[in-house]
Amino acid sequence: MAKNIKTRKDDYAQWYLDVIKAAQLADYSPVRGCMVIRPEGFAIWEAIQRDLDRRFKETGHVNAYFPLLIPQSFLTKEAQHVEGFAMECAVVTHSKLEKDPNKPGSLRPAAPLEEPLIIRPTSETIIGHMYSQWVQSYRDLPILINQWANVMRWEMRTRLFLRTSEFLWQEGHTAHETAAEAQAETLRMLDVYADFAEQILALPVVKGTKTDSEKFPGADTTYCIEALMQDGKALQAGTSHNLGQNFSKAFDIKFLGRDQQQAFAYTTSWGVSTRLIGAMIMAHSDDEGLVLPPNVAPVVCAIVPIFKTDDERKLVGEFIEKLVKSLQSGDAPSVALSPSPAALDSIHSHVFNRSTYQKIIVDWRDARPGDKQYHWEQRGVPIRIEVGPRDVAQGVFIQKSRLSRDKNVVKLEDVSKDWLTAKLNDMHNALLEKARAFTKDNTRPASTYDELKQILTTHGGFVKCFFKPGVDAEAKIKTETKATVRCIPLDQSGETGKCIYTGEETTTQVLFALAY
Amino acid sequence: MAKNIKTRKDDYAQWYLDVIKAAQLADYSPVRGCMVIRPEGFAIWEAIQRDLDRRFKETGHVNAYFPLLIPQSFLTKEAQHVEGFAMECAVVTHSKLEKDPNKPGSLRPAAPLEEPLIIRPTSETIIGHMYSQWVQSYRDLPILINQWANVMRWEMRTRLFLRTSEFLWQEGHTAHETAAEAQAETLRMLDVYADFAEQILALPVVKGTKTDSEKFPGADTTYCIEALMQDGKALQAGTSHNLGQNFSKAFDIKFLGRDQQQAFAYTTSWGVSTRLIGAMIMAHSDDEGLVLPPNVAPVVCAIVPIFKTDDERKLVGEFIEKLVKSLQSGDAPSVALSPSPAALDSIHSHVFNRSTYQKIIVDWRDARPGDKQYHWEQRGVPIRIEVGPRDVAQGVFIQKSRLSRDKNVVKLEDVSKDWLTAKLNDMHNALLEKARAFTKDNTRPASTYDELKQILTTHGGFVKCFFKPGVDAEAKIKTETKATVRCIPLDQSGETGKCIYTGEETTTQVLFALAY
Repeated sequence: MAKNIKTRKDDYAQWYLDVIKAAQLADYSPVRGCMVIRPEGFAIWEAIQRDLDRRFKETGHVNAYFPLLIPQSFLTKEAQHVEGFAMECAVVTHSKLEKDPNKPGSLRPAAPLEEPLIIRPTSETIIGHMYSQWVQSYRDLPILINQWANVMRWEMRTRLFLRTSEFLWQEGHTAHETAAEAQAETLRMLDVYADFAEQILALPVVKGTKTDSEKFPGADTTYCIEALMQDGKALQAGTSHNLGQNFSKAFDIKFLGRDQQQAFAYTTSWGVSTRLIGAMIMAHSDDEGLVLPPNVAPVVCAIVPIFKTDDERKLVGEFIEKLVKSLQSGDAPSVALSPSPAALDSIHSHVFNRSTYQKIIVDWRDARPGDKQYHWEQRGVPIRIEVGPRDVAQGVFIQKSRLSRDKNVVKLEDVSKDWLTAKLNDMHNALLEKARAFTKDNTRPASTYDELKQILTTHGGFVKCFFKPGVDAEAKIKTETKATVRCIPLDQSGETGKCIYTGEETTTQVLFALAY
Repeated sequence: MAKNIKTRKDDYAQWYLDVIKAAQLADYSPVRGCMVIRPEGFAIWEAIQRDLDRRFKETGHVNAYFPLLIPQSFLTKEAQHVEGFAMECAVVTHSKLEKDPNKPGSLRPAAPLEEPLIIRPTSETIIGHMYSQWVQSYRDLPILINQWANVMRWEMRTRLFLRTSEFLWQEGHTAHETAAEAQAETLRMLDVYADFAEQILALPVVKGTKTDSEKFPGADTTYCIEALMQDGKALQAGTSHNLGQNFSKAFDIKFLGRDQQQAFAYTTSWGVSTRLIGAMIMAHSDDEGLVLPPNVAPVVCAIVPIFKTDDERKLVGEFIEKLVKSLQSGDAPSVALSPSPAALDSIHSHVFNRSTYQKIIVDWRDARPGDKQYHWEQRGVPIRIEVGPRDVAQGVFIQKSRLSRDKNVVKLEDVSKDWLTAKLNDMHNALLEKARAFTKDNTRPASTYDELKQILTTHGGFVKCFFKPGVDAEAKIKTETKATVRCIPLDQSGETGKCIYTGEETTTQVLFALAY
């Protein structure tokens, strides 16, 4: 049992923080609510960005960049939007600091701005303003733009990756000629997110719509992907909003249509954030530490040499050199990625997949082999390998899988890049299947409100029931159970049943859950 | 002559803005001094990022992310740093907005912060604070981290890309065990920048050090790359700072050394920004509009079909289909990158280089061929191709080069991906040579202060002379001539001469210039 990590059973919240700390993914910063994403954590975000960016481009989107600061008055132009975001934003009021005559050595704000600016909590307003200038005719549509950016929402209760005042995300903002095109775009991006979550993060998700209480402030409809964490709480992993003409009317995004009439554009927005890293940790990691889905693992394989004498070191070293060459693809250059000319007693890095920057490393540090194994286990490296003098004599090595924790004896002559790739794919599939089974086992039906409450108290997880969404009913249920409607799944049976809260007949089935 | 673009001779400043506008690279935003980087401009930044990021990783660096906001008190910890940055920063003082009872429909800042925060103008302070927590022993060094981020400096006079209040950049921050390692890192990254500027942007640069008046606030030594623009003004294109122990002492980055003694680390920082896009425009573009260095061109080749009848359209279309297939590499999938199922009368995109997202496009829009040629010329596309029915009959097409503006008749059977690649390489080399010749022709020696003044007035450009750097002398020269010491080139002859200002003997030769 890892000594520096609480078990999930003992203290799930602390376990989560311990896993992050042990793997050096992130730290709290001196600015309250803001985090530092450390290199090990940021490499995961880079893998996420790389894959999503490719998917966005393949669906016709281009990237751009809009200002960080938004005039305060922009927020007031869309009635629901201002209610949603004014309460939790960072406000810039001054444009310099000057020496404070009252406190030597201290500074104070000076040069007040005429109009305060806010740090973007999301960019519909400023982007809407720019689109109104770029769109004149239907020929200028669609606009399909994405932005990778930092955003800020002043959060009271923060948790690394899952909820921080500043976070990194991407926000897509599109404008279309017709309502049908905007709706198609909204669903297309929801599918991109769902497919990404499953194929890259091994995270099974439920696609659905939000009820009015939970939708994005200013949207006609919010679609979402929801995932279940190991403590039975749900987590919203991505959203795609059909904004109808709400923002185009607020920001005057008008165009001359094919019929020579002026019309307002239909807009959408969609986003995922560094929160996905939190989701990935909570869905897959175990009491030993981080478990990384292979497609985002910066290090796919860690090799630990075992030796006592210099002769043994040489023998093991030569074997490992052959092993690394076998595991690299033919076109992978044997570039040393290590900082500075790789010292004998340091971690040596080798390219595994050049386009994804994934690496194979050999841990030559001056430390005990057991400690090194433990080190890479806590960092979630999918495949670990151990090579000692007796293994070399037999032409084999020991391979351990982070997920199954199996130990295998493998012949050097049997391995190749394809062998390692297959191992990684197997692990991805096993992770996804395990998480799918967990989600299935933890989705329970309820036919009465009492049943809902009982399941939430006893098991947690998703509770599936007939329900007529309504702001008042949902508010009451939230007060009484802390649970919310996570989504109205797109996949509806079409059957009729009784609303668990009002008893009225309805065909709508929803998923309730406690949520992050 | 382009009607929407002033000539360089008539009005260089307006020409620059016109080029940007015609190519749709960027717009001013409703927030004073902040720009919107439009998709065409952002694609150039992505090409810059992709190449630099690879170079950083190949020299052992990893990416991370630090908070946007910095406690005001951090700025005061390094004496020179505070003088340099306090005067021009965005200050966050409140954490929400509330309805203004005095102005219905308006908001006002509420919930004042205990300590104001500033939006990072650069991150030495907050990163120094974090490094002090991460570094315990010499085994934790070196730390080699880069951050891609937005930063903010409240600028009074702004110019798109060259000087805006918010800009995008990368900032490398490293910590080392010894002064020698920090110095080696500082120079290594200067070389990375210089090589990048020449190989990717076709921008010849002079490597040198800044004088004390011009160095980074808090650095021991600032190294820079300086480039000459077509109006004879210099532009600082990148800097690499050896910070010595200044920040490690201010932020307590201490470690237990190999000698079992506590020591302060040696740190460096280095950065380039979206300013590089401005430098690239000013160095290469002409009176017809943007000229893109091929290595950062999002579209490498634009094909314009010419036809009158439907039969001709079909004929030309079939020929172009063959042409595009010849120009793509064997492994490039013929993915339609166009937004939505490519309409007949729209711009069709095809993959040229998958890893750099560079494209070949066919412009089927319903417009006059001349207007389309003009469109792609103003956007700086390196190679344009025209295909009409008579060309098809002869199995040829017309190829135009953006740089030389030559027209060639080329046989379809003669082209391939290698043909296009060679054309692009030729253009890169020609651009670089042209800019090198310009820099050489506009670097003039001066042996007296009067000569310096005369050259600056008559020709501009770099003026090379013996000079003993000094804060007072440089301030006076700046007042009298507006020129500054751009750098003390690393490449010094070793000769002795008389300082143009004091007449004292010195071996130091510097470059003076007016600068952006």
